Parts: sequence; C-alpha cells; structure tokens
Amino acid sequence: MSSDSASGVAPTEFLAFLRSVVPLESHEALCNSVLPAIIDSIADIAKILKSSHKVALAGSANAFGDDQLNVDVSAENAVRAAVAKCPAVVTASSEEDPIEKPARESGNIPAQGTQSEKYTVAFDPLDGSSIIAPNWTVGTIVGIWEGQTALHQAPAEKQVAAVLGVLGPRTTAIVAVRVPGTEGICFEIGIGELGAKDSEIVRPSVRLLQPPFKTRYFAPANLRAAAEDQRYADLVNHFIQQKYTLRYSGGLVPDVVHALVKGHGLYISPVTSASKAKLRRLYELFPIALIIECAGGKAIDPADGSDILQRPAKDTDERAGLVCGTAEEVELAKKSLLQ
Amino acid sequence: MSSDSASGVAPTEFLAFLRSVVPLESHEALCNSVLPAIIDSIADIAKILKSSHKVALAGSANAFGDDQLNVDVSAENAVRAAVAKCPAVVTASSEEDPIEKPARESGNIPAQGTQSEKYTVAFDPLDGSSIIAPNWTVGTIVGIWEGQTALHQAPAEKQVAAVLGVLGPRTTAIVAVRVPGTEGICFEIGIGELGAKDSEIVRPSVRLLQPPFKTRYFAPANLRAAAEDQRYADLVNHFIQQKYTLRYSGGLVPDVVHALVKGHGLYISPVTSASKAKLRRLYELFPIALIIECAGGKAIDPADGSDILQRPAKDTDERAGLVCGTAEEVELAKKSLLQ
Repeated sequence: MSSDSASGVAPTEFLAFLRSVVPLESHEALCNSVLPAIIDSIADIAKILKSSHKVALAGSANAFGDDQLNVDVSAENAVRAAVAKCPAVVTASSEEDPIEKPARESGNIPAQGTQSEKYTVAFDPLDGSSIIAPNWTVGTIVGIWEGQTALHQAPAEKQVAAVLGVLGPRTTAIVAVRVPGTEGICFEIGIGELGAKDSEIVRPSVRLLQPPFKTRYFAPANLRAAAEDQRYADLVNHFIQQKYTLRYSGGLVPDVVHALVKGHGLYISPVTSASKAKLRRLYELFPIALIIECAGGKAIDPADGSDILQRPAKDTDERAGLVCGTAEEVELAKKSLLQ
Repeated sequence: MSSDSASGVAPTEFLAFLRSVVPLESHEALCNSVLPAIIDSIADIAKILKSSHKVALAGSANAFGDDQLNVDVSAENAVRAAVAKCPAVVTASSEEDPIEKPARESGNIPAQGTQSEKYTVAFDPLDGSSIIAPNWTVGTIVGIWEGQTALHQAPAEKQVAAVLGVLGPRTTAIVAVRVPGTEGICFEIGIGELGAKDSEIVRPSVRLLQPPFKTRYFAPANLRAAAEDQRYADLVNHFIQQKYTLRYSGGLVPDVVHALVKGHGLYISPVTSASKAKLRRLYELFPIALIIECAGGKAIDPADGSDILQRPAKDTDERAGLVCGTAEEVELAKKSLLQ
C-alpha cells in the first residue's frame, strides 16, 4: 500500500495530482512542500488519536482533563512541527495558540530559506472535542494564506488553500486550492500511515450536486437556539415536514464533509442573543468556506447573509455563526433566518 | 503498547478483567475464548476499514458498489473466522447471511471440541453503511447466546453477552456480560492492533447516570416519521424546547455508545405505517438492549412499550423500532409515542 518511491523520482499519486492542478510557476512551494507537510501532520494526528484510549475519560464523570489536553497539545505540535519544516511558511497561529508568530524560532530557518512564496498557516488542530470520548469522527482544519499574516487580508483572495483532515475509521482529507486567477478545485484524498507520499486520490473533484436531489440532508447545529428563535424552529420544522434526512454529529468537520461526500447538505449554526457565536472565523469558518465554495456551494454568516469570505478578520478571536452547503438550501435558510 | 505475553502466563489487562467479573466455573470458554475472539475480529475489521479508501465512492454518483460490498464481506469473514476458532461456538448467523448454521464446516472441529459450554453468535459485522463514505464512525454488533440457537429462546436469559465494536479514530468496544444469576456488567475497552491481548480497560463500569443531568442528549432516528406521526413531532419539539443537545450520526452503534459514554442519552427510532421497522431484532436490537440494561438503562419496542428482551425471536429477519437510553427519558418517550 505504501509507496517506496520516497526518492522523488516518481511522484506519488497525491503529489502528481497536485502538480497537475496547481499552477507550479507561481505556487511550487505550496504544492511540493506546504500541502504535503499538512497532510503528513494529519497522518501524525491520526496516529496520536489511535493510541490515546484514556482520552475517552475526558469530560466524563471521572474525568482526567489532562488526557484530553495531551491529545490537543500533541495535535497542535504535529501541525507546528510540519509547517516549521516548510521554508515558505513564515507565520502560523492556531485555535490552541491564537497569536500569529513566526512559523519557527529565529535562527532556525531551513536551508532553502530564501524564496518568493510566503505563506501564513491558521489552523484548528483537533476540532470536535465533545465527541472524542465516544470515539466519533473528529477533524483538523487548516487555512493557508498568501503573505505574512492572515489578518486584515481579503479572505476570498488571500486564503489560497484549505484542508479538512477527517479522523475517522480511515484518515482522509478534503483539499481545496484557489490561487488568484483560477476557479479553484476541491478534491478528496485517502491518507496512508506515511502521510502525503502514501496518499491516494479518492475523488478528483468534490462537487455539491444540482437539483433534483435523491436525498436531502440537514445538520442543525446549536439546536438549542431554536428554543429562543422561532425562525430557526420554523426552519427545522420545515426540514422535518419535507422529510430531509438528519445527520448531525456535532463535529464541524464530519458534518461539512458529509455534505461534500453525499453531494448535498445544509449545515446551520445560527446565533441568538442567548446562544453566542462559537465558530472562529480564522480557524474554522474561513477554511470551511473556501472548501464549500470550491465545491460549488455557499457559506454565509446567518447574522446578515453576507459571504463568510467577504470580510477580513481584524483579530484571531472573531467568531460568527455559519450556514453552508448546497447553494439553493443556503438561500432558503438565509431567507428564513433573516426574515 | 502491545503485550508480548501471548504465552498466557500473565493475563493481559482485558483478560484479567474479564476473569475477575465473569463466573469462570460456568463460563470459562466465554471468558477465555469467545469474547477474546470477538475482540480480535473487531481489531481485524478496523484494519480492513482503515485501508479501504475507495469504499468512500460507494453510494455516490460515481459509485462502485463492489467496494462497499468488499468491506462488508471482509468484515463478515473476519467475525466468522474468529468464532470458527472457538470450540464452544456451535452456531452463527449474521445480518449478511441470516441463516443459523454450524460455526464451522463439519470435520473442521477444533481439537478441544468436547466441552460443556455451547454458544450461538448472532452479529452485524458492519453497521452504518450509509456513513462509511463520509468516514464517520461505524460499528460491529455481536450477541452471544447460550445454546445451539438464538431462535425461540428467552433473550433476557439466553443472550449472555453482547459487544458493540466502535470503529472510529480509535478502535473501542462496549462489552456487557449477564450470565444467569448475576446482575450483569457493562464496561468499555480500548482495542489495540493485536486485538484482545493488546486491549486496555477504559471504563470498568459503564453506567447511565441518575438525575440531575448536566446535559441531556437526544438522537431522533427515522426523523422523517415525524412528518407522519404528530406524537413523534411533538416529542422532538419537546426536546428542542427543553434545550436537549442533539447528537445523531445515523449509525446505531455510535449513537448508542454516545449515550453510554456521556452517561445520558435517548435514542428514538419509532415506526409508522409509512416508515417501516428497519432494525433487526436478532442482530441489532437484542445486543443493544443487553448493553443498555447492563448499563442501568431501558430498551423498549415503541410499538407497544414492551422491553426489547421480553419476546423471543421466531426467525432471524424480525424487525422493530427502538427507544433506549436513560430510563426516565425512555418512560417519557414511551408515554408520548403510545398516547
């Protein structure tokens, strides 16, 4: 299963595919270094999770919070170590450590330090902490930005790639790349134990389908908000009456990936005065929105209906709600929630 | 991590624990052979799934149904091979091959063939096929019965053990054992790559908690039935208004295990004239019900409110709905659905 051609003579399936779809002249490092390093770190996180059985006790009556913490920290370290090896990554920040800092300590710059491509990585190493204990699928979220910072930048142009690592029975990832001047692509890979060099292309094009739909899916997040907002309650009731299929794990990555893999889905996380916004724009919403847009869907802020990628982040802690998925479903939800 | 003491001199954590809670004088083979073999087969199924990336295409627009089928068949074979090695298992049947047959071909009886313990194994090798493609957690369900058949037997007495294998980022299992004359126990293990000899006890006692509850969870399966049955719609609305937390993956094993690990939960799969019963009593409902009862919860048939384990199965294909979880929630749902 694993590829032994680590010499680089014969590019592996994932690398060969990346090189065929990303403009190499302008984004060689993104393709050959940064994205493979992110995929490697997702393989590492899968390994960490796999052997962390005692993490199941976190959040329970007999909780040992340290175990939960250990997995979070190990996942954080896996991504940090991976990007530190990429000369083109100059800045990194994460949900665990939300301050933009140099991607590596000064004086510790890799040999090939001088190059024209410069990237900032913003990531959530282990999303879905509430469902780690019952052994449900969780995820890693990564956004890759051109330049030395992700703040005060136009997200739609400057965030050029995003990765959703899916840590389940298999280790998979949805990858989107949209460099300026291209339409953007979204594809799915199966990740082997060795990471990027051991990964295969599962779906070369991930697309949300056009109507008619065989099955319609909905994922009503933050459902307690429906007790406070009649418009949300009515919308949920509409989906029930229309016999949409419910799939809601409570993990942002598996819930969004479900829609992408099935070709249809609507994820709704509204905000009310009592149910505050929880999703971080930089570490969760921006990468998800790029993935969804590259798959032909829409991702909007339910507070005003604007595209998630429309407005720059002024700081790393900004939060908002999210409605995303199949475009016509997002439009319906937008009308219902903003009426 | 793995134990090298396969010689049996020092029992591994899982085996030592089993021997401390199961009456060995009457159920030595259950403890030393049958349950370890089932755990080994769950480790095997985890390995099969992990390397089956193309299974993600099953059920999609560009489906190759064979891949899905291959994983199902491989999982089936893993359990069959495991139980065939146990002299005490005389009969087996499964959701994939629902006819009770000898556990191994005649003439192929293991050396230690003569013994007083005799068991029948009834299993669903890979439950949750609709969520395999998006890489969500799925499961294996196993019921172990005393005697040469599971049909026409009192489930509450004759089904003496059940295992829910949880195939997620980790490989875990919830195990219940209730041999006649005991109250029954339910515990959780983390399964290593080598199976039983490489497994650790995560929760020595899995219990649904008593009120007051910090968080209340609900998993409304077959939600489309709420469009046909106002009582179900009202019940779901009650949970929304009472701000219960929604967790519904659509996989029976992860959904039930979520309640067990969190200490609270209600799984509801009602039946209406338009939404027929889907869950098989022998391969799904009986093992789930034993686990839930051993954890202090209730599992009932929503059609009449009777305990799932009350009535024997007359054939392997019988199906029903299910309401299970925290006892007081089950009582509430029963009243609402039967009013």
